[in-house]
Parts: sequence; structure tokens; C-alpha cells
Amino acid sequence: MPTAISSHPPEREIISRRNALQSKMRDLGLDFYLCHDPDNIFYLTNFANFVHERPFILVVPAKGSPVFLMPKLEEPHVRTRSVGDLECIHYFEFPAPQGKQWSDRLKEILTPGHRVGIETLCPLAVAKAIPSTTVELDLVDDLRMIKSDYEIGRIAYTSQLVSRAHAMLLDGARPGRMAVELHSQATAAITKKMLMDNPNANMLNTRFAAIAQPPELSHDPHNFTDVFMKFVNGGPHVSISSGTANGYGAEVERTFFINRVPEQAKQPFEDMLAARALAYELTVPGNSMSDVDRRVNDFLKEKGYGSNLLHRTGHSFGVTNHEAPFLAEGYDHEIEPGMVFSIEPGFYIQGVGGFRFSDTVLVTETGNQKLTQAPETMEGLTIDGKPSMVDSLKSLAMKFMTQKA
Amino acid sequence: MPTAISSHPPEREIISRRNALQSKMRDLGLDFYLCHDPDNIFYLTNFANFVHERPFILVVPAKGSPVFLMPKLEEPHVRTRSVGDLECIHYFEFPAPQGKQWSDRLKEILTPGHRVGIETLCPLAVAKAIPSTTVELDLVDDLRMIKSDYEIGRIAYTSQLVSRAHAMLLDGARPGRMAVELHSQATAAITKKMLMDNPNANMLNTRFAAIAQPPELSHDPHNFTDVFMKFVNGGPHVSISSGTANGYGAEVERTFFINRVPEQAKQPFEDMLAARALAYELTVPGNSMSDVDRRVNDFLKEKGYGSNLLHRTGHSFGVTNHEAPFLAEGYDHEIEPGMVFSIEPGFYIQGVGGFRFSDTVLVTETGNQKLTQAPETMEGLTIDGKPSMVDSLKSLAMKFMTQKA
Repeated sequence: MPTAISSHPPEREIISRRNALQSKMRDLGLDFYLCHDPDNIFYLTNFANFVHERPFILVVPAKGSPVFLMPKLEEPHVRTRSVGDLECIHYFEFPAPQGKQWSDRLKEILTPGHRVGIETLCPLAVAKAIPSTTVELDLVDDLRMIKSDYEIGRIAYTSQLVSRAHAMLLDGARPGRMAVELHSQATAAITKKMLMDNPNANMLNTRFAAIAQPPELSHDPHNFTDVFMKFVNGGPHVSISSGTANGYGAEVERTFFINRVPEQAKQPFEDMLAARALAYELTVPGNSMSDVDRRVNDFLKEKGYGSNLLHRTGHSFGVTNHEAPFLAEGYDHEIEPGMVFSIEPGFYIQGVGGFRFSDTVLVTETGNQKLTQAPETMEGLTIDGKPSMVDSLKSLAMKFMTQKA
Repeated sequence: MPTAISSHPPEREIISRRNALQSKMRDLGLDFYLCHDPDNIFYLTNFANFVHERPFILVVPAKGSPVFLMPKLEEPHVRTRSVGDLECIHYFEFPAPQGKQWSDRLKEILTPGHRVGIETLCPLAVAKAIPSTTVELDLVDDLRMIKSDYEIGRIAYTSQLVSRAHAMLLDGARPGRMAVELHSQATAAITKKMLMDNPNANMLNTRFAAIAQPPELSHDPHNFTDVFMKFVNGGPHVSISSGTANGYGAEVERTFFINRVPEQAKQPFEDMLAARALAYELTVPGNSMSDVDRRVNDFLKEKGYGSNLLHRTGHSFGVTNHEAPFLAEGYDHEIEPGMVFSIEPGFYIQGVGGFRFSDTVLVTETGNQKLTQAPETMEGLTIDGKPSMVDSLKSLAMKFMTQKA
């Protein structure tokens, strides 16, 4: 099991990421690569910016230190947070008078003669401000796909936190208890743990969710419109414990039951487990990501769930908890050691509920390894939960208060 | 004072926004306007999307209902959340095999013969997928600048919430107490209040911060790198209570002191108040936004703070808490009734601290009106705060725990 790491990256980690980028740039004959995506900027600097109307632009030359263009206001804490050499250049404000705009300063760095790589998701207004020849290619996103030992350690750490929150969620699940209450307790507990482990953790790129949907809603996997939704006897409930802890993501999810497993949920649960086992078998070095998803989907279609599929088999993690590469039909890339995926084949039956497990899984030289932990069997996921007197009273009180509002 | 509104928009509000957009489109000879910005989509549909790799694209025709292209996964809760007619079209997943991609479905809506308006911040990959002639112009952002009565009511409501959190912050400020502790208490209290007022409030576009910087950090206004930072005797502390409650933003900020006002802070505080009074006098219909900022900055420069300025006089609020229009030099637009601004001239002196108030201010037919509430005088902002025995013990315990980590 990789060692969990909660500390900020050492300079050599950031330098090695930049070196890899610059080496690719030289292969491609690029003079500069321009990052606007906050996640790519964080990856190369350890600085997490606000996303707002004042642009932050990181310009990486083929050799030497990056130039970071930012609002003057932000410069002191860029210096506090960033790791690795940076040449900081600021503009005063946005908007600004002609000649003092961020785009004017950008033109001091880049000239028409340069060949500049830019992200495919670069906003038009930023792309238009570049005076050089531009080439659209996601060099940093590509680098992010294979994790360093440090990144694996950080993802392993977040995996521990979300697994802990998930255990609290299952532990507290009772008929009548509101999801939002357990969410608050569990996320507060892991936020505190994270800050104890690293008092300088950056709250700007920390975000946790630990919530579950009761069977009434679990067929609609992104439906969290009713934060007062309550757990019930039976299931399938579907839990999500997901997050980005100080900049590195992970998730763990389960289908679970309280007190009893409805008859109609038993076969789907077993079929989901079988699809999951197949996905683990296939998510190994050398296989095509597209094929993994196709074979898992074909298996579920054969079982009769063709009209119940809503999503691909998996996505990756890194400086976010949702990113490329993807275990998805049509995504023809090869699985490599050092990649991290969610493995989460699922299906959704209106009137019955949702069936999905997800884990954060590292691809190793010989196979794969789960970084998250949670029960895996129907027995382990059938919670013995009698509503307590306190819960019943709380539930009554909440009913009264929400009716009043 | 405008009546605060906590409920979701009625259909007529959304229809009136769409009508205003479609009328502009017809004036400009546009067949469609394409929104990718989640805030613009929320403004026109009341649906707040996740920002991730699966695109949500709203295509508004010059006449009739918008077409909303989205991942299949999201369709049920788009229907739950959205207000006003929508034609929903989905793609299965991202990535996807050729012929089944989101861009394939987009080409069923838009053809090469169409003239399509797009946002200036549209990502390159989305702009490139449009088969039509595109025109870059921020029609929805422009509409958002003048608020309807409903929007003013929603901003007034968020103003009440952030004012309440701010009052809790000032009330709890004691030497030795950690900012993060008060932040947790205050944001939990207003989140609860919001959910009591509207149990279906959308947590996806709800976010509160209620925090303050001690004098050691308050010269660096976006520096929140140390969440364990502690209040101290004296000042200037600078507080921020800011947020988006169920989709509508507001903020209130103050410079405050605990027990005593250091001699070196007295004159700067008075000068900031004078600059603020000037900004209120100037932020009235008919004036130029650029001129307001220039005159306020000139006033502060004359007082000797030229090298202590870090930002413009103000920004607007709406479906975000940081947006156009701006009270900023170089931004030559006329102030109109129905606009909402932060009025927050400030300056920052290393070794002394920051000096800034901010309020959420509505421009009326005849002048302006603050929607937020907080003390305004040095006396009202000098808090009588003896450290309690409990605080001293907590502080010791925290010191011990963070040293151990």
C-alpha cells in the first residue's frame, strides 16, 4: 500500500513536473506553453487561484522558470503558497485603462514570432490576447495522467480521509435520519483531521461531500435537490464520499441497505458486483480504456440493464477528483502503471434505485490496488439501524420547523 | 428598503430574462445565442450545473424555448430544478465514440447557415465545435448588469444573511480566538437559516465565508493561508462576510479593532472613511464608473496612499458575488438605477494593516442604498473583548495539537 502523504510538494516534485513539460515542448518546437486552467497552474506551482474575472496566466518557456502573470493584489500570497521558481509579473486591476491591461503585460512576454501551446479549454478572450502563433494541445493535462510517487501518496491520503467519512456515514445511517446531518458531521471530522495533519492545508482547494441518497432518489445519481432527504428501512441507498483534500482528490461510494434487503434489489446488487469484478480484472496495464468500458457495458446489457446505464465505468483523479483519463467507450488510450481510476460501473432502475460502488484505484505494474476502503458484500452493507429516540424527536422537530418556513 | 426574497424565481421572471435576450438577438440578427458559462445558464434556467468535463450547453433561439444539451445522467434533475420551458437534448457520455459525442448532437441544433452569438469566455473546444458563423459578444452578462425587482429581493436576502454572519463574527472576536472557529459557527448558522427559509435551496450554488484577518496579515487582503490565525489586541483586523445564498451574492466587510485602536491606525481609518463617503456620493445614476474609481483613487493618492492601493473601488453582484459591472478606471460605462455594487475603496500598509469597508449597495433612481448592515464608526468597530478562560484553554490545546502534527 503506498504511504499516505499530507504535506505540500517538495521543490523537486514541482521541478520534475516542469521538466517533463519543457521536454515535451522542445520535442514539439514550442517556445512557450500558456496555462489558464487553475488546475494546471496548481499542478505546476502549488498555487491555487480563485477563478474570477481577474486572469491568472502561467507562461512556461521551453527553458528556465515560468512567468506568472497575475493581479497585483494576489502577488504576496502567490509568493507564500507557490513552490519552485517563478517570475511574477502583475497588472494592477481588471478592468484597466488601455496600456495597463493584463493583455498589455502578456504582450511583453509573448511576441508574434513565438510558437505558443495553449489548452483546448482556453477561453476565447485569453487566446485572442496572445500575439503569437498558437497551437492547441493539452500538454499539462496529458502529463497529469501518470502520477508520481508523491501524487500517489497524496491521493492515498485523500482516500483515507474519504474512507473515514464514508465509515461515519454508514455508521450513522438510521431510518429517519437526514443525509445532511451525517454529511455535516463527517465532513467536519475529516476537515479537522486534515488541518491537524497539515495546519497550512489550502482550504481553497479542499472540498468534501459525504452524503447518501435513499432508494426513492438513488436511481437519479446526481439528484441532491432535497438536502433534508431521509434514510429509510431497506434500500438501495447509494453513498458518495468524495473530495479534494488540500488539492488532491479521491472518492468511495457504495450501495447499502438498512435492516433489510428488498427482494427486487438482490439480483441487481449481485449483477453490479459481477460487473465491478470484471472492471477490476480489465483495468490493468496494456488494456484499452475504451475496451474496458465496452466490455463492462456489454456484460450489463446482456444481463438486461441496457436502458439503465447512465455513465462510463470510470474517471481519473489527481489535482481534482474528476478528470482524464476516462474508462469510456470511444476513449482509445492504453492503461498504464501510475494511472489512478474510479472503478464504478453502475445502473439505475426507476422504482428500485441505484446500484454502484466506486473506489479510488491505482494501476500498478501487475494489476491494480484500491486506495479506498469500505465494505464490499451485501452482508457488510446491510446496516443494523434502529431509529433512536433522539433521532425520532429530532425528525419531528425538523418537520415542524420546515413546515413553519 | 427592498423586500428580501428567499424563494426560487417564478416562471415569469425567467421568461422576462429570456425575452430580453431574444429581443437583443433579433436586433443583432442572431439566430441563436450559445451559453456555456454556468452562471449564464443558471440566470436563464435556474439550473446550476457542476463544472466538470461533461459540457452543458444552452442554445437560445431568437424565438421560442431554449434547447439544453447535457449529459444523459443529469437530465432528471435538470427537469427538477429548471424554471421555464426547455427542450432537453442529451448525449450519453464524455468521452464518447465518434457520432455519439456532445459535438455531434450540437450539430443537430446548429447548422453552417446560422449566425450564433457566443460568450467571450467560451472555451476554444466548444467554440470550435459550432458549425455556424459565430459572433463573440456577452449578451447575457450585459443583461445581468441591471437587476429586476426579484433579483434585488434575492440580493437583499443574501445581504441579510451575510450581515448576520458578520455580526456574529464581530460579536465573537476576542484576542487569541481563531478566525476559523468563528467562520464555522457563523456560516453554519446562516446556512441553517437559509435552509429553514427555503428547504429546497440549492447547495451547489451556496457558499459562505465569514472570516477576518488580524493586523499581521490584513495588509495582504487575499491571504488566508493560515486558517489558525488568531485575533489580537488592537488592529486593524479586516473582516469579510461574503457569499452566494442559493444562487445570489452579497458581501459586507469592515476594518475593526479589539480593545484599543493603535495610534498609527487612526488617521488611515479616517482617510478610508472619507474615500468611502466620496465613493457613495459618486455612485449615482449618470456618473461614469471609470470616473468614480479615478476620483476615489486620486483622493487617496493626494492623502499619500498611492503606493498602498491594490484594487478598484467596486464590483457587482447577481448570480455570483463577483461580476461586472466594475467601478474601475478604464471601465467607461454609465451607472444606472437597478445596478448593485460593492463600494469598497481600500488601502494596505505593510506593518500597519488593511483599511477597507465593503457593502452591497443598490443604485436607485436618485442615489444609492446599502442592502447590508454593519457598524460604521471607529467607536462601533472597537470591540470590547477580554479573552475568556475557555478561549485561553482552547488556544493552549490547539497549540499542543498542531505542534504534535
